[in-house]
Amino acid sequence: MRALWVLGHPDERSLNGRLRDVGVAALRRAGWQVDESDLHRDGFDPVLVTEGGTDVRAEQDRLRAADLLVLQFPLWWYGMPAILKGWVDRVFEAGFAYDVLDPATGRARKYGDGGLAGKRALVVVTAGDRPGSLEPRGISGSIEDVLWPLLHGTFWYTGMDALRPHLVTRAREVDAERMALLEAELIERLGGVMTETRIPYRPLTDEHYDHSIRLLPHLAPEGVGLEVHVDMASPPGGAGSSRRAADS
Amino acid sequence: MRALWVLGHPDERSLNGRLRDVGVAALRRAGWQVDESDLHRDGFDPVLVTEGGTDVRAEQDRLRAADLLVLQFPLWWYGMPAILKGWVDRVFEAGFAYDVLDPATGRARKYGDGGLAGKRALVVVTAGDRPGSLEPRGISGSIEDVLWPLLHGTFWYTGMDALRPHLVTRAREVDAERMALLEAELIERLGGVMTETRIPYRPLTDEHYDHSIRLLPHLAPEGVGLEVHVDMASPPGGAGSSRRAADS
Repeated sequence: MRALWVLGHPDERSLNGRLRDVGVAALRRAGWQVDESDLHRDGFDPVLVTEGGTDVRAEQDRLRAADLLVLQFPLWWYGMPAILKGWVDRVFEAGFAYDVLDPATGRARKYGDGGLAGKRALVVVTAGDRPGSLEPRGISGSIEDVLWPLLHGTFWYTGMDALRPHLVTRAREVDAERMALLEAELIERLGGVMTETRIPYRPLTDEHYDHSIRLLPHLAPEGVGLEVHVDMASPPGGAGSSRRAADS
Repeated sequence: MRALWVLGHPDERSLNGRLRDVGVAALRRAGWQVDESDLHRDGFDPVLVTEGGTDVRAEQDRLRAADLLVLQFPLWWYGMPAILKGWVDRVFEAGFAYDVLDPATGRARKYGDGGLAGKRALVVVTAGDRPGSLEPRGISGSIEDVLWPLLHGTFWYTGMDALRPHLVTRAREVDAERMALLEAELIERLGGVMTETRIPYRPLTDEHYDHSIRLLPHLAPEGVGLEVHVDMASPPGGAGSSRRAADS
């Protein structure tokens, strides 16, 4: 198995840098081939001006080869740091990640299907917030809702299975004892990363959405919020449960 | 009145560039003093490495002087382009936008209070999506939920009144006739921008949140989704309705 681990943090000696080292080492011990992009170390330019660039081609080649994409970052203003957002803006090009046509229908493949179908995507994210504030009734909302643009609008949109974020809260309050615990939790999480249940976002099919891409009236009829787009009735399953085998 | 209008789009001749020109001109005709940041034209560096920089000081001075902040951008991966996210990452520093202490309590002012209290913030955003997809039951979710990290986690967090986004959908399908309509809609919106009702996000007070910053159990008891953090019972009001006068 092959992974691409992308870190967007300015300091390798940070909590994030340490967790990246631990996570990459754990995957390698388990037999994974891991490519690393440390965007600050690599001097990645996040500004999209025109299409392409050799740095973008190289990232696309590594992503194309990966079974698992890990995006790791500190939560800045409840989203990705600009350097990582720019990695998505530039690497996820039309014809590569999206606007990939289904030859049978001539339509763009999207939402559970697309240029990156067959891959899984995991966010590893640190936040200064207390755990209670990143829950549905916490003042910041659930981490799944906060990261909806990335989990649903980017990963799922391009065909990847989005996994529940691996969230570390109280990131400025980590002593040696807690660090050991955080490392163990990350290693355990990575051990099951290809078999755990994905977030069961609904696929873009006639069984879920109408032709204006609105959820069908009889589904979650009383529902509000982004969770209506999660299929609570979806059978739990591991990798690829939502896709046709041909997409892998 | 004074405004800071920040554009994050690579092409001044785009729909975004045109709407910016129209919007800034309309404010000036109405007597506003308008500062403009065109991040691509200015070559703004979005990567936060260390604190500060003279470019950041200049932006902070313009923001400090503004009654209204307008952030304008094309919706890329359901969020801001990296260059604009980096403007937020770098300009919204601790001690300026957040971690500003209340002298009476010694606590950081946040959520409806903070370093930017007394200002209003408007997003002008273009999207290729059809209108139906950026609604609560549309596959992408409501634009308010999609932009929650910016509207609630950034504007409201730093004390600004967040206004409902000014959303232009089907942005790749604009002919001359529709362009005239879009310009008229933006001009009309800006005409009432200081008196329209803000999004009534709940303030961080004992009447709404407990000490772990979770919503009190009796408020929106059946609620799910980010809308539980909107106070439906809030009286409609114009600028400053949620704040103490001393914050302005």
